[in-house]
Amino acid sequence: MQTIDSLGYKVYFDDTLKSLESYIAKKGYSQILIFVDRNTNDHCLPVLQAALPNLLDYDIIEIDPGEENKNIDFCIGVWKTMLDFGADRKALMINLGGGVVTDMGGFAASTFKRGIDFVQIPTTLLSQVDASVGGKTGIDLDNVKNIIGTFTQPQAVFISSAFLDTLDQRQLTSGFAEIIKHGLIQDKDLYNTCKQIDTTKVSTEIVYRSVEIKNKVIVSDPTEQGLRKILNFGHTIGHAVEGYSLLHDSNPLLHGEAIAIGMICEAWLSHKHTGLTESELKDITQTFLSRYDRYAFGTEIYGELIELMKNDKKNEEGKIGFALLKEIGNATYNVFISEDDIKSALDYYLESCIE
Amino acid sequence: MQTIDSLGYKVYFDDTLKSLESYIAKKGYSQILIFVDRNTNDHCLPVLQAALPNLLDYDIIEIDPGEENKNIDFCIGVWKTMLDFGADRKALMINLGGGVVTDMGGFAASTFKRGIDFVQIPTTLLSQVDASVGGKTGIDLDNVKNIIGTFTQPQAVFISSAFLDTLDQRQLTSGFAEIIKHGLIQDKDLYNTCKQIDTTKVSTEIVYRSVEIKNKVIVSDPTEQGLRKILNFGHTIGHAVEGYSLLHDSNPLLHGEAIAIGMICEAWLSHKHTGLTESELKDITQTFLSRYDRYAFGTEIYGELIELMKNDKKNEEGKIGFALLKEIGNATYNVFISEDDIKSALDYYLESCIE
Ligand SMILES: NC(=O)c1ccc[n+]([C@@H]2O[C@H](COP(=O)([O-])OP(=O)(O)OC[C@H]3O[C@@H](n4cnc5c(N)ncnc54)[C@H](O)[C@@H]3O)[C@@H](O)[C@H]2O)c1
Ligand SMILES: NC(=O)c1ccc[n+]([C@@H]2O[C@H](COP(=O)([O-])OP(=O)(O)OC[C@H]3O[C@@H](n4cnc5c(N)ncnc54)[C@H](O)[C@@H]3O)[C@@H](O)[C@H]2O)c1
Ligand SMILES: [Zn+2]
Ligand SMILES: [Zn+2]
Repeated sequence: MQTIDSLGYKVYFDDTLKSLESYIAKKGYSQILIFVDRNTNDHCLPVLQAALPNLLDYDIIEIDPGEENKNIDFCIGVWKTMLDFGADRKALMINLGGGVVTDMGGFAASTFKRGIDFVQIPTTLLSQVDASVGGKTGIDLDNVKNIIGTFTQPQAVFISSAFLDTLDQRQLTSGFAEIIKHGLIQDKDLYNTCKQIDTTKVSTEIVYRSVEIKNKVIVSDPTEQGLRKILNFGHTIGHAVEGYSLLHDSNPLLHGEAIAIGMICEAWLSHKHTGLTESELKDITQTFLSRYDRYAFGTEIYGELIELMKNDKKNEEGKIGFALLKEIGNATYNVFISEDDIKSALDYYLESCIE
Repeated sequence: MQTIDSLGYKVYFDDTLKSLESYIAKKGYSQILIFVDRNTNDHCLPVLQAALPNLLDYDIIEIDPGEENKNIDFCIGVWKTMLDFGADRKALMINLGGGVVTDMGGFAASTFKRGIDFVQIPTTLLSQVDASVGGKTGIDLDNVKNIIGTFTQPQAVFISSAFLDTLDQRQLTSGFAEIIKHGLIQDKDLYNTCKQIDTTKVSTEIVYRSVEIKNKVIVSDPTEQGLRKILNFGHTIGHAVEGYSLLHDSNPLLHGEAIAIGMICEAWLSHKHTGLTESELKDITQTFLSRYDRYAFGTEIYGELIELMKNDKKNEEGKIGFALLKEIGNATYNVFISEDDIKSALDYYLESCIE
């Protein structure tokens, strides 16, 4: 079984989940709370139960699925349920789900009675490769994403490819965008591998390599003072597009779909400002456009997008900072970009879509 | 100027507040947010402004005063105001007020954008001697006190006796209970000094000695795994009485008034279980009854009080744990007490009141 050492805890790549079983057996928790959304209750909890036949005594906390529920109102519901279940400080919270469940469950656990233990079992590709290390917990407020949260490390993370079998194709493709991102910022080989594979068959090996890259970055900068900012490549514009879509679309973009757009725009900025070559820009644009649907919007939304970027918690003193590529496999950060250039980057995306 | 070194930060005993001025000058904060309640806005902000004439540019966040506002709804209001003010991660939050402001402001700051810097300026006697060290932040939920919170250390704490001038007598007496507690658990000399002084004239020296005791305990046990639990002397029963009073009384007990009751009851438990002598018990009972009004209740509320104790976040596996005295100046913890004994301890308080 492969493992990765993160900030004081281990990530287990373990399709059997035996490592979780022995983790629970070793620690003397007073109570087990399993936090799920309706979908992971239906699809993932049975997998967990089958793998851990001895885990008989637990309480389930369930929320409705979807980013729109990752907010303070539902979090209050989670806290109240924990209170109702009489959870004490020696309780363990198992977050079984995608990033919504792991982010919100992590936040609820890290603030309940000033913090109880929690473990993450990410069940989407996106959450496995992106939310599994780094210790970020969070919820949204007033549609500003992750504006409330903590840096709290889980006790352990368990990644099993078994969960991905029930995930729909659109979710798999969305998560794949983060793997491509990890290639783009740190590992040209991984990027080239990504170009060749089909997003319906993501191997455990690719997930492992992707987590390894992210982990290397966050271990060297746990509280996002410097290097860690390179993980935001594609996310400054991508988060704004995601936030916009969540507000206005009946079938909003998924996170990975939004940051795929963000990465195209920010590759353009990288070409203009940090040395990415024209052929690399074309290559990246092509990689994303061949996998992700075009998202149609007009220039009249630029103002709203830029407002959303200004509210982004990564900003300092009103300036919008970017992580950009110097070349494929090599990124830099704290590049401050003018609003005009951001608009041109959005123009570039729209032009690429109609070409 | 006296200072105390706590967990990675200093507590300044500084009536001039010049140490705050130089702290702010040294750090390059993007923005200063001052969090107050209506009373500290009226009485303490002018003191701060007079001491820091160069502090011209700041935003004020104000809440209504009182424990009933230290809850998640008002906290959401604080977060939204921070968002409206465009606060970024390099903003500083100055919490200027009693424990309600420092606890809730600390929680809001420690979770906003996953944590911004904050400093505490406790302006009540209670918050100066008790909330100034330890890193506990928190808010109430469903009338369960401090059930949501974090352990997050401030960047610094500034204690000035100048603020106490506008505090009313009842608040001073309430805060004094925590000073007596620090004597009871760790320092017989301090306890004896307390017996002689008038709560209207609390010297800076007494505040300093009291903080010093609490700090020694918390530094040796930052996350409340063991020794730190002795600080809960009087608080298991006291918190329940406080919670009950908040729910049922139009003019509820103050924290210190409630824990004074708790300390009488828990001194009785200490006599029964951990070796406190009868004469020490009488001495402690007398010390509190001579300073604090009797609180009249009947045995019919015992059930509700015990329910509140069971919900207390300090409990594990449904057992109610106490910190008790072995003698005056020496405490122990993790003493588990039966419900019958808790009822007898409450009986003792009621009997002492009518004697
Ligand atoms: N903490 C971090 O470092 C970090 C990193 C990246 C993203 N995130 C957060 O993660 C969230 C997005 O994560 P996500 O894409 O996993 O979203 P998600 O949790 O909403 O999951 C997507 C959908 O898939 C369903 N689902 C989950 N697992 C399933 C399974 N195995 N089978 C069938 N259905 C399943 C969910 O119910 C949901 O409907 C965002 O809120 C984002 O902010 C956090
Ligand atoms: N974090 C900790 O370690 C810790 C320790 C003890 C208590 N607490 C918390 O502290 C709270 C109680 O603190 P508190 O007693 O300071 O209550 P508080 O903050 O409500 O203050 C009491 C009253 O005095 C007013 N006030 C404050 N300073 C004043 C001043 N200088 N002049 C005039 N009026 C002033 C306030 O507006 C309020 O009306 C509780 O919520 C308790 O849980 C926290
Ligand atoms: Zn992402
Ligand atoms: Zn107290």
